[in-house]
Amino acid sequence: MDEISLFKQGMRRVSGAVTIVTTLGPRGERRGVTATAVCSLTAEPPAVIACIHRETSVGQLAPLSGIFCVNVLALDQRTTAETFAGRSGHVGEERFRVGAWARLVSGAPTLEGALACFDCRLERFVEFSSHLLLVGAVSRTLIGQKAAEPLIYVDGGFTTATREIRSEGRK
Amino acid sequence: MDEISLFKQGMRRVSGAVTIVTTLGPRGERRGVTATAVCSLTAEPPAVIACIHRETSVGQLAPLSGIFCVNVLALDQRTTAETFAGRSGHVGEERFRVGAWARLVSGAPTLEGALACFDCRLERFVEFSSHLLLVGAVSRTLIGQKAAEPLIYVDGGFTTATREIRSEGRK
Repeated sequence: MDEISLFKQGMRRVSGAVTIVTTLGPRGERRGVTATAVCSLTAEPPAVIACIHRETSVGQLAPLSGIFCVNVLALDQRTTAETFAGRSGHVGEERFRVGAWARLVSGAPTLEGALACFDCRLERFVEFSSHLLLVGAVSRTLIGQKAAEPLIYVDGGFTTATREIRSEGRK
Repeated sequence: MDEISLFKQGMRRVSGAVTIVTTLGPRGERRGVTATAVCSLTAEPPAVIACIHRETSVGQLAPLSGIFCVNVLALDQRTTAETFAGRSGHVGEERFRVGAWARLVSGAPTLEGALACFDCRLERFVEFSSHLLLVGAVSRTLIGQKAAEPLIYVDGGFTTATREIRSEGRK
């Protein structure tokens, strides 16, 4: 197996929280894409990173708008995840018909019922081959009202966490 | 609640695969740290990113050695995760007494029984406050022999994925 295929097979084994990363176009039009390559960078100051394909609308528009929002999905938001992954064929504003959307500080769409939303100012971005690495300074964190089960992507499918076997873990 | 506390609370809701990121010191000494802020950057070329605290040994040594390896843990490797998170009080080489360790291309330690190991050349790094963002060009991906349950960290504790509720998900 060549290295690219091996890498893809290896990455199927890396569990990730499912998020929708949103931004705005130059006329305020909403854009969003499902992404699992998102993680915390620092807590002080609050900052996150998101790896987004450059050819997606978010990849093209976030560097221009200078804002984005990371919406962390709950298990019951799988349909929304699929819509923003392009599985339903919807593009652009059409996708926002699924789910209830609001705005926080930046204006980037925030998803109601999400586990958490991280509303960001684009601090910097790094171009790397097909992808953009967005570094976001978090202007506002929104904690979802309910502590729902997380939506997790692994092995090419959606799943959630098994609560029973949790230990205290590390702090 | 202040923004930093809100951010930390929000990040507790972001599920992440548990990994151990390893590197070598100038005399070949092994160093490793548990990290959940790791994700895929691009598949072509194979590349990953890892956010590591600058004050960890890996944060200090990876920019010097120019190599690192991301080891993705299985559920039965929780003790190893705790050791490399510093919970047992072990530091430096001592930590490698837990688990069976080998080497691939770069020389950075690879963990036997891991779901996958991504052996990397440090392509570039970005300093951001307390953390380093390591961008790694993957020299070799090692797929674990068994397709074990993943070790996942969420809500301050370890867990795994619930297989039963998986759907096909997106490709």
